[in-house]
Amino acid sequence: MTVRRPTIGVFDSGFGGLTVLKALLELIPDAEYIYFGDTARLPYGSKSVETVARYAVEAAHYLEAQGAELLVIACNTATALALDRITAAAHVPVVGVVEPGAGAAASVSKNRKVVVIGTEATVSSHAYRKALEARGLEAREKACPLLVPLVEEGWVEHPVTEEVARIYLGEAFGDGFHDADALVLGCTHYPLLKPLLHRVAPPHVSIVDSAQSTAHAVADHLERLLPLTRAVGEERRACPRLKFFATDSMEKFRRLGERFLGHAIEDVQHVDLKE
Amino acid sequence: MTVRRPTIGVFDSGFGGLTVLKALLELIPDAEYIYFGDTARLPYGSKSVETVARYAVEAAHYLEAQGAELLVIACNTATALALDRITAAAHVPVVGVVEPGAGAAASVSKNRKVVVIGTEATVSSHAYRKALEARGLEAREKACPLLVPLVEEGWVEHPVTEEVARIYLGEAFGDGFHDADALVLGCTHYPLLKPLLHRVAPPHVSIVDSAQSTAHAVADHLERLLPLTRAVGEERRACPRLKFFATDSMEKFRRLGERFLGHAIEDVQHVDLKE
Repeated sequence: MTVRRPTIGVFDSGFGGLTVLKALLELIPDAEYIYFGDTARLPYGSKSVETVARYAVEAAHYLEAQGAELLVIACNTATALALDRITAAAHVPVVGVVEPGAGAAASVSKNRKVVVIGTEATVSSHAYRKALEARGLEAREKACPLLVPLVEEGWVEHPVTEEVARIYLGEAFGDGFHDADALVLGCTHYPLLKPLLHRVAPPHVSIVDSAQSTAHAVADHLERLLPLTRAVGEERRACPRLKFFATDSMEKFRRLGERFLGHAIEDVQHVDLKE
Repeated sequence: MTVRRPTIGVFDSGFGGLTVLKALLELIPDAEYIYFGDTARLPYGSKSVETVARYAVEAAHYLEAQGAELLVIACNTATALALDRITAAAHVPVVGVVEPGAGAAASVSKNRKVVVIGTEATVSSHAYRKALEARGLEAREKACPLLVPLVEEGWVEHPVTEEVARIYLGEAFGDGFHDADALVLGCTHYPLLKPLLHRVAPPHVSIVDSAQSTAHAVADHLERLLPLTRAVGEERRACPRLKFFATDSMEKFRRLGERFLGHAIEDVQHVDLKE
């Protein structure tokens, strides 16, 4: 019997979602992946609900048309602002990053008190606060709009980035949040800053990155979606197939993307969403 | 005889072009202005020629449809990457910011050697270097991708911004460019950083902002375009009419825009470019 490999569509406004794709490739190597980066319209983090929802729904339709059987919204802003709209518009299951991230925070926080950092739009939506409060945790959300451009400038270990992080985290962990013991990275760009954030955050704080927990949520969905392809003992072909689509320059996608994914990006195609 | 007021369309990817609009309002108050900010797709500075040109041509058509008789491309990236394409697509005269900026630099630089700072896309296009070399000046262009997000974060007098500017200008004025005596602000966000840049740039350097020289270029065009409306001695009605259009949230346009324009923004309408 031939094992059918599922086709997973992964969507982000740009490059950050590649940190989620990386976790997916490690956990679920026997799949086909289609990654869509809306690089011509990034960043989403400073934009309104209406605009982000419209862009995200277009991307979801594009990935479905390419054969995706499950969609991963590997963008905190799109998940926070538009998961409901994407789910309503899609014909396949949709997994976002906020619920898995909140679940991971709940499992590590002993004090039941966490800080979430993210884009302006993610923080304004309070999606993380709602997801964490539903699990009985107290949350403070802090917008850190400079961290994405600093990562894209490649200053992931730069003194300026450390100073910016010190200012943002100083505010987030001040005033009654000194005892928060988890820091949720509520933006898929931030995992690249993990070593720096470990130095800057208070020493008792665990850093929670939703990439791993999102990958586990996807694996659970696949079990339900395609149980026959996961028969125990069956040989797994551990060589994922990858295809990338970007709405802006392919050369830049390759160059910046490799920093996020950690290895070479080969098959990138340009997409025009008929704007 | 009634003096007909010209209708001037001003275009930018977002808010920076408001620094040019401010200079236009001071020099040419007796006009109607239509400002278009493509806030749903900003920033242009990190995007490719193809994408920027497509967006800019759409904006130009929109402004013409609203009655603009002259278009001001108040965005360095759009001017540098797409002025030819916009001019070819438009049915009215088009004025960009690069030529006026280069002209202003040529008139202040004694050493005939200047530094231009701008976005990644503007610098890669070498539009400023070409315009300056055509005037017999030597130019070094330096991309400063963090300055726009720092301005949008409101950190225009912040120690972090000063440190970032010190790093960028240190590189730009190093290695054979110590004697450059003009700094061209090749991005319409940068005028908000003028006091800080004055402190950080070498003391003998003049700062050149293309807003004023662009306004003068527009005035010259109007003289040719509508000579009868400018009869000497005629009473001028010094009360410009302003209309704003933005592709993303109107509330945010008002809030951020007022920082750039220096006074209240009232009449903003949302535009959907049918993406």
